[in-house]
Amino acid sequence: MEGSIADPHSSAGVATTVGQCLEQIGRIVGDKGVLTEEPDVAPYLVDWRGLFHGRALAVVRPRTTDEVAAVVAVCRDFAVPVVPQGGNTGLVGGATPDGDGRAVLLQLGRMNRILDIDPANYAIAVEAGCVLEDVQLAAAGADRLFPLSFGAEGTCQIGGTIATNAGGMRALRYGTMRDLVLGLQVVLADGSVWDGLGRIRKNNTGYELRHLFIGSEGTLGIVTAAVLKLYPLPKQRSTALVALRDAGAAIELLARAREASGDLVDAFELIAKKGVDLALDHVAGARDPLSEACAYYLLVELATPAAGDALGAVMEGMLGEAFEEGLVVNAVVAASAAQAQEIWHLREAIVEGQRLRGPHLKHDICVPLSAIPSFLQVATDAVEGVDPALDVVAFGHVGDGNIHFNVHWPPATDAARRVELTHAVAEAVYDVTTALGGSISAEHGVGQLKLGDVARYRPAVEGRIMAGIRQALDPDRIMNPGKLAWWER
Amino acid sequence: MEGSIADPHSSAGVATTVGQCLEQIGRIVGDKGVLTEEPDVAPYLVDWRGLFHGRALAVVRPRTTDEVAAVVAVCRDFAVPVVPQGGNTGLVGGATPDGDGRAVLLQLGRMNRILDIDPANYAIAVEAGCVLEDVQLAAAGADRLFPLSFGAEGTCQIGGTIATNAGGMRALRYGTMRDLVLGLQVVLADGSVWDGLGRIRKNNTGYELRHLFIGSEGTLGIVTAAVLKLYPLPKQRSTALVALRDAGAAIELLARAREASGDLVDAFELIAKKGVDLALDHVAGARDPLSEACAYYLLVELATPAAGDALGAVMEGMLGEAFEEGLVVNAVVAASAAQAQEIWHLREAIVEGQRLRGPHLKHDICVPLSAIPSFLQVATDAVEGVDPALDVVAFGHVGDGNIHFNVHWPPATDAARRVELTHAVAEAVYDVTTALGGSISAEHGVGQLKLGDVARYRPAVEGRIMAGIRQALDPDRIMNPGKLAWWER
Repeated sequence: MEGSIADPHSSAGVATTVGQCLEQIGRIVGDKGVLTEEPDVAPYLVDWRGLFHGRALAVVRPRTTDEVAAVVAVCRDFAVPVVPQGGNTGLVGGATPDGDGRAVLLQLGRMNRILDIDPANYAIAVEAGCVLEDVQLAAAGADRLFPLSFGAEGTCQIGGTIATNAGGMRALRYGTMRDLVLGLQVVLADGSVWDGLGRIRKNNTGYELRHLFIGSEGTLGIVTAAVLKLYPLPKQRSTALVALRDAGAAIELLARAREASGDLVDAFELIAKKGVDLALDHVAGARDPLSEACAYYLLVELATPAAGDALGAVMEGMLGEAFEEGLVVNAVVAASAAQAQEIWHLREAIVEGQRLRGPHLKHDICVPLSAIPSFLQVATDAVEGVDPALDVVAFGHVGDGNIHFNVHWPPATDAARRVELTHAVAEAVYDVTTALGGSISAEHGVGQLKLGDVARYRPAVEGRIMAGIRQALDPDRIMNPGKLAWWER
Repeated sequence: MEGSIADPHSSAGVATTVGQCLEQIGRIVGDKGVLTEEPDVAPYLVDWRGLFHGRALAVVRPRTTDEVAAVVAVCRDFAVPVVPQGGNTGLVGGATPDGDGRAVLLQLGRMNRILDIDPANYAIAVEAGCVLEDVQLAAAGADRLFPLSFGAEGTCQIGGTIATNAGGMRALRYGTMRDLVLGLQVVLADGSVWDGLGRIRKNNTGYELRHLFIGSEGTLGIVTAAVLKLYPLPKQRSTALVALRDAGAAIELLARAREASGDLVDAFELIAKKGVDLALDHVAGARDPLSEACAYYLLVELATPAAGDALGAVMEGMLGEAFEEGLVVNAVVAASAAQAQEIWHLREAIVEGQRLRGPHLKHDICVPLSAIPSFLQVATDAVEGVDPALDVVAFGHVGDGNIHFNVHWPPATDAARRVELTHAVAEAVYDVTTALGGSISAEHGVGQLKLGDVARYRPAVEGRIMAGIRQALDPDRIMNPGKLAWWER
């Protein structure tokens, strides 16, 4: 049977085989669990940026781990690839099937139960299809914080955040998703289930399987449930918008803020002033409370679970000293939740402003904190070396070294030149990143989009190790083929 | 050549082969780098508790990663197993070769350079042979904290703490060693080098190899260097000894302490009052500042990098409220560094007191925080069910759910009965641990000691996955054979 489903539409015999496969899947998940009609499946076959379009035999929507396991076992028997998908908010095409239409798309959104919350153990157990924001809210309802936070939190699902090791705004304090997972349940390529749903913090009884699956983009198994780490819920926040002397001042200020606050820095976001200007030009309601003529702003947020109102004074004291020493040229500390919200809105509006200005090149890089000023300078020079008309807008999670280094081309640039620029700019940015010991994909992953770039910049020995792991866990390559595995190119 | 070195002393032909292997190794590391004389090698062939005694062809002491790689390549060619060893402070025989004398023991202590410190990036790069305390001191010299801390810190080496994913006193706040590693350099079984010495906090470019090697006890590769995460250096500490209403009060108090302090709890150690009594009986200089008639004490320490002197008041306020509500029956907050030291000394003296009382059974378990009271009650009952004369002394890192659940037998117990009790008590304790979703080896690892126990309690599917990984990375089983790989039994 293996390999016989080359094209579901090519011959009657193959169509029969496909029919048998879908029939068996239908018996597992019920008729409502299998979508095959064009209008039903279409939304799942394109990523939200519209960069990748795929085809699939069907969209399958299981309700339980046992159903996922049984579906994977059938797919294995028929040599049908399985593409898992959560909220479909990824940025690299990791959840979009390829164009040959042989795959089953496994949509986990119906598995969206919160399984239990244990506040005393600072842990919550959830199914993979839970929306991130629902997990945040459930935790808050038990006076606990689930700290993962980023733009797509109202749509993305926990399984996807685990498969991609999502990062976001609070990673400098709480880590990325990897650091927030205590236990995992995973359906393996042979249809068996690894029930690693531990709720404990220390376990040295063999290789750490949890971290193998986190960030593996569905190529080693399908996450069906997880136990996540919770923290005390913050009772005070202080949010500031800061106009910086220069990018280097951000790194100096981070050390001061960590020290002055007792390591309570909850967000530390760099914002190129150009990004603010784009937001003001394009996004309704965006307002700059500073209007300072500088290259970089910074959003700083402190948070603590301790009651009281001392945090604002800590922020003001810290920024006052930094102002006297010239690191900071101006700053505004939010005096109310509404003002804090306005500052956060400005941070989010720069993403929207860039989108509205037009298509641009995105680079999601990470370098050591101490290399941030050098990176911004050298990479900007390198991009302008490619074409002086290119315009860099950098922003992001500078507190953990992660910069979204976006590049706009002039509006009149034609399609052929855009393709040239895409490659030339990526090479320029990634060469600088790599020379500084950085990563060319910090938090968005590899998916389909970055296979070539990652293959170029990662050492061959890493590919050899990863190939061995892939072979051990998915010898038939049915788990999300064509994603992440840059060494297979 | 494979498998020919069955016994180095069995025949002239084999001796020649052994001679060739050692000669090639000698050319790599120099004469001083190869120890073969009995008095020179003896200290490396026994673990520090004296439970395991092994033999080896030689103790090899490389100075560089290239030397390690070349030695491993020679060992692979001659099918000679490689047993890596750091400070030799492990508790499960993971660094002691077996008795057949075929292995080379690779001692990494000469690779003890601090490579660089980058305070702005909160990172330090070190060779594997660095002693943990030297890393702590180097970090403190740069106004930074390296938080890993436990009894053997003056002797154990960083490579060993990575290979075993060491835990200790501060893991509740900073995580185990796994959480403190940014990058790794590893020599693989084929003698190649994976240079993953990244200094960055976000990198999603494939499977997370770092976490595969951490905790793998040398069975997948040999750690030769690492980049470690640093934190702001604490400027205030407050240490208290607390007499608890009962074990359950510890868990309630942890949540209050995290909240009241703004999540600044740096240590949270449970101490059975019985352990204090043993310390007072056996250890010179041990003093109990409370003398309270209760079952459990708690050592609580808060720490913050913020300057000032507010932390003592936070501790007193938090304990005062807990006293009023009956969680705490008495407490003393250290008024000076000397008093804090005395409280810590009492914590350490309970280990020494148990040792001096005589041989006993150690169980290093972890359960969810919310299950701690239940675990202590049910496991104690189970042990007393085995033999009412057995005496439980439990203590440890209750803040992350990790209890050292030790069991003393009556002094007159004969050797045969001790063997019986060892197995019956372990089964009783581990059955309770497993029923509560816990781990039977929380921070000490598997090594040789726990192969049977772990094989009994972990699910078969985990063994299958781990076997696949082992096969991919060490197909000839030359990397520390007979350790950790419980599925191979």
